[in-house]
Amino acid sequence: MLRAVVTGNVWSTRRIDGLPSGAFLEVEVAGGGSRLVAFDVLGSGVGESVLVVQGSVAAAWFPGTPPPVDALIIGSIDAPGDDGEAALPAGSRIPGRR
Amino acid sequence: MLRAVVTGNVWSTRRIDGLPSGAFLEVEVAGGGSRLVAFDVLGSGVGESVLVVQGSVAAAWFPGTPPPVDALIIGSIDAPGDDGEAALPAGSRIPGRR
Amino acid sequence: MLRAVVTGNVWSTRRIDGLPSGAFLEVEVAGGGSRLVAFDVLGSGVGESVLVVQGSVAAAWFPGTPPPVDALIIGSIDAPGDDGEAALPAGSRIPGRR
Amino acid sequence: MLRAVVTGNVWSTRRIDGLPSGAFLEVEVAGGGSRLVAFDVLGSGVGESVLVVQGSVAAAWFPGTPPPVDALIIGSIDAPGDDGEAALPAGSRIPGRR
Amino acid sequence: MLRAVVTGNVWSTRRIDGLPSGAFLEVEVAGGGSRLVAFDVLGSGVGESVLVVQGSVAAAWFPGTPPPVDALIIGSIDAPGDDGEAALPAGSRIPGRR
Repeated sequence: MLRAVVTGNVWSTRRIDGLPSGAFLEVEVAGGGSRLVAFDVLGSGVGESVLVVQGSVAAAWFPGTPPPVDALIIGSIDAPGDDGEAALPAGSRIPGRR
Repeated sequence: MLRAVVTGNVWSTRRIDGLPSGAFLEVEVAGGGSRLVAFDVLGSGVGESVLVVQGSVAAAWFPGTPPPVDALIIGSIDAPGDDGEAALPAGSRIPGRR
Repeated sequence: MLRAVVTGNVWSTRRIDGLPSGAFLEVEVAGGGSRLVAFDVLGSGVGESVLVVQGSVAAAWFPGTPPPVDALIIGSIDAPGDDGEAALPAGSRIPGRR
Repeated sequence: MLRAVVTGNVWSTRRIDGLPSGAFLEVEVAGGGSRLVAFDVLGSGVGESVLVVQGSVAAAWFPGTPPPVDALIIGSIDAPGDDGEAALPAGSRIPGRR
Repeated sequence: MLRAVVTGNVWSTRRIDGLPSGAFLEVEVAGGGSRLVAFDVLGSGVGESVLVVQGSVAAAWFPGTPPPVDALIIGSIDAPGDDGEAALPAGSRIPGRR
């Protein structure tokens, strides 16, 4: 998955059949600055940090026939990945935790 | 998906079996300037901004046996992604909207 | 798909089972200069401009069990994508054309 | 697969249905420095070197319906890839070894 | 596929279920210098030039349930792709050759 920030909507009136209900949002990938367009069913807004899944698993999430969608926002990110509540340091894993 | 602009046609007379009806269009990806060839069934023209889906979901869109196509134009883009009608700012989401 | 030019053969005597009949050709991707190895069933030659499909759809083209092949030459390119016979300019689309 | 080092957690409270139990960990890919978010079921910790698989095979690992996950930590790396216990030099392969 | 040279082993004792028998080898991609980890069933050695297939077709090669593997060494390369026994020049194709 990629962390990204929503930068805007992409509107397409003339389009192929089979696209699901939802929005096409342009997002900027964290770090690199590259942009892609992801499908959104969560009502994400401009400036929001999101988690984007890519490839056929994005399409497979939809019920029924997979739509021609190769990027999907799967969640809104609560906090940066490097904050204090981050993963436990290596070596401090709790035995039995899976 | 990627935003791209159509830059021309790619013609191939000698080719493998199983390719569907439509056009191979060369497109330039917005931002980076990299180019790829996408299949088009919408009659897109040179200079047109389009939305391109990549990978196996492009092939899966076609009825019957998926053709050897890994990029498909799924729509013509109405307006830039950063215009005034863009997504709602974070925090202004309508409760209950999905 | 990617436009590329064939630059040579790749020979592999010691290899895994399940590879189909045909040639492994090294190609240089147009524009970037990056190289990859694509499977060829068309008898493409060095210096020839070809269209390459990547990913699982390349393997799915083969009859029977999909082979471990992730890039396939699907056609020989007749002419550059930016020539005079290119796609119609945006706005000149013929009504009813699909 | 990619070698990477875990750099933190990514938390997402508002998210789509169908995500499995486990953690979203941000990892930094060895060498390039690019970052991605991988799903973890091993309890990996910050600073740990891990092996990450990408694409639909990450989702296919989960039992039942494949979740919308395109990167999965498949193991914790014991040692660097260029150490003394590395693969045998070419030419020293044991006959009959498969 | 990618041409690459084996640079070492990657060892992982603590790992998820479902990984097949064989070795995880780190390889350096020809040209760019980027590195990835590929699964090997051929007994490839350090310094050996190999051909690597990526994505779901790598996993699909294995019998039974596809393992969480996204890169597989499919062959050892006999000779450089630009040597004298390379593909025929364009225009010298033998009629009737497929």
